[in-house]
Amino acid sequence: MSEHHPDTARLRLDLSYDGTDFHGWAAQPGQRTVQGELEKALGRIARVPSRVTVAGRTDAGVHARGQVCHLDLPRSVLATLPGRSDRAPVEALVSRLAGVLPEDVVVHVAREVPADFDARFGAQWRRYRYRISDGPAAHDPLRRDVLRHRRPLDVEAMARASAPLLGEHDFLSFCRPREGATTVRELRELRWERPGEGRADEGLIVATVVADAFCHHMVRSLVGALLGVGEGRRPESWPAEVLAARTREASTRDGAGAAPLCPPQGLTLDHVAYPPDEELAAWAARTRTLRSPLPAEGP
Amino acid sequence: MSEHHPDTARLRLDLSYDGTDFHGWAAQPGQRTVQGELEKALGRIARVPSRVTVAGRTDAGVHARGQVCHLDLPRSVLATLPGRSDRAPVEALVSRLAGVLPEDVVVHVAREVPADFDARFGAQWRRYRYRISDGPAAHDPLRRDVLRHRRPLDVEAMARASAPLLGEHDFLSFCRPREGATTVRELRELRWERPGEGRADEGLIVATVVADAFCHHMVRSLVGALLGVGEGRRPESWPAEVLAARTREASTRDGAGAAPLCPPQGLTLDHVAYPPDEELAAWAARTRTLRSPLPAEGP
Repeated sequence: MSEHHPDTARLRLDLSYDGTDFHGWAAQPGQRTVQGELEKALGRIARVPSRVTVAGRTDAGVHARGQVCHLDLPRSVLATLPGRSDRAPVEALVSRLAGVLPEDVVVHVAREVPADFDARFGAQWRRYRYRISDGPAAHDPLRRDVLRHRRPLDVEAMARASAPLLGEHDFLSFCRPREGATTVRELRELRWERPGEGRADEGLIVATVVADAFCHHMVRSLVGALLGVGEGRRPESWPAEVLAARTREASTRDGAGAAPLCPPQGLTLDHVAYPPDEELAAWAARTRTLRSPLPAEGP
Repeated sequence: MSEHHPDTARLRLDLSYDGTDFHGWAAQPGQRTVQGELEKALGRIARVPSRVTVAGRTDAGVHARGQVCHLDLPRSVLATLPGRSDRAPVEALVSRLAGVLPEDVVVHVAREVPADFDARFGAQWRRYRYRISDGPAAHDPLRRDVLRHRRPLDVEAMARASAPLLGEHDFLSFCRPREGATTVRELRELRWERPGEGRADEGLIVATVVADAFCHHMVRSLVGALLGVGEGRRPESWPAEVLAARTREASTRDGAGAAPLCPPQGLTLDHVAYPPDEELAAWAARTRTLRSPLPAEGP
């Protein structure tokens, strides 16, 4: 349960970042991280130290468009944020953050949420997107969130190979496990498409990956296995065999090792979903029980 | 008329670049330019010096998604490009260029064209797009081709102020003129919109600017004048008054100077249109007569 002080406001921030020049989300001494930059900016504006809790702890080089985090601020501090402007305090916070944060992080929206809101344990599901251009015709030098692949990929084969991975499974073969933490997850969607003319991501290959939560390296291992199929190096049955083997060791029928990680630059955390306010507390309690000890949320 | 050697092939290249780290298109000693990088890459691959002629000589910081250029290569050189691969020579050129060019330039397509094809003088019209995010909710740290604007802009006012600029006019007030060159151009489209959900550029403000050709600084001066309207600093009638004044000096009714340049980072050359092959020679001859001495095509 979160502590609740009536003189403290819990704030939800929705943010995006270009992961290219960050050593991932999580603050680390001596490294440029998103959490580090965000907490530094919040500290400058609020003049009190701030700690944020995030929905998805992305790896180095991974981007986010729909990242969510929460923090607690004393109401006395919140009240000072508008200064002489006529903005509401949380709007003033967004505007002040835009002036202080580096160009590769943007906080789009801030709002006060119930004290039971937990960006990490309160999330119902997460959606990631992996974007690939598979030839010079589709490479776009103006995008930073796309993997350039040298040869054409067979999207239909990747889609077929994805189908048996859907549902609740032990994804150990696709995770870097933590001692004692469960690697059972529910993979709700793993879809591959080439959006047509006039649509966002026209000409690219886009994978949409949705699960209740992801264990560490899970999205990148799933995509890495499916790239092997798309390139024709692996049979379509291979990703399901890797899943069934339930090990990080080389153990599948054709003697191949566990699923390889794909490069981070094509991966973007796209959306995190939360239940209605009245279910927040119950949901967070349920998730904490289900996934203790704390799993990593990095993909 | 272009010289035609039967042992020389004229090639058309369609390319994109992120203009952020370039000193514009045109080769300049000691500067990193798109033309410089492209000619260096072509020289490495073809092992003969190559000069390219471009449709739109973009300024420093301006991007391109639909840029077109042409070059001539001896057929004996072209024949060597596939090496031991089974690709056609022009396909091999695209693939080889992808391996040699820096990440911020991509040649999407190469094809042989008639010797009368002239990327610059043969173009019928050019389309530029200017993209703006007007608040933290719309800023996207993963895009390099969008101007971030600190306050909301009035898109309807900008659209109304654009209407009287359409058609054939002397755009002297919006150009950096060259000695003796005409500044008469036909502005065919100047449209402002906010694309809705699911569309490319969702949430941004996008200006579409189409003309037969643009004199130097023309797109950036037009957009700069209209930004003044969108911010509420200028009346909607002001851009038309600047046009009518036909001068780069401070001379409009309210005592304001010529149109200010908007920043380059929101501007992208989007498309260049050419006539069918059988009209290429006639079109290029007509354009050369109309716009001599050579005008700059930079926006």
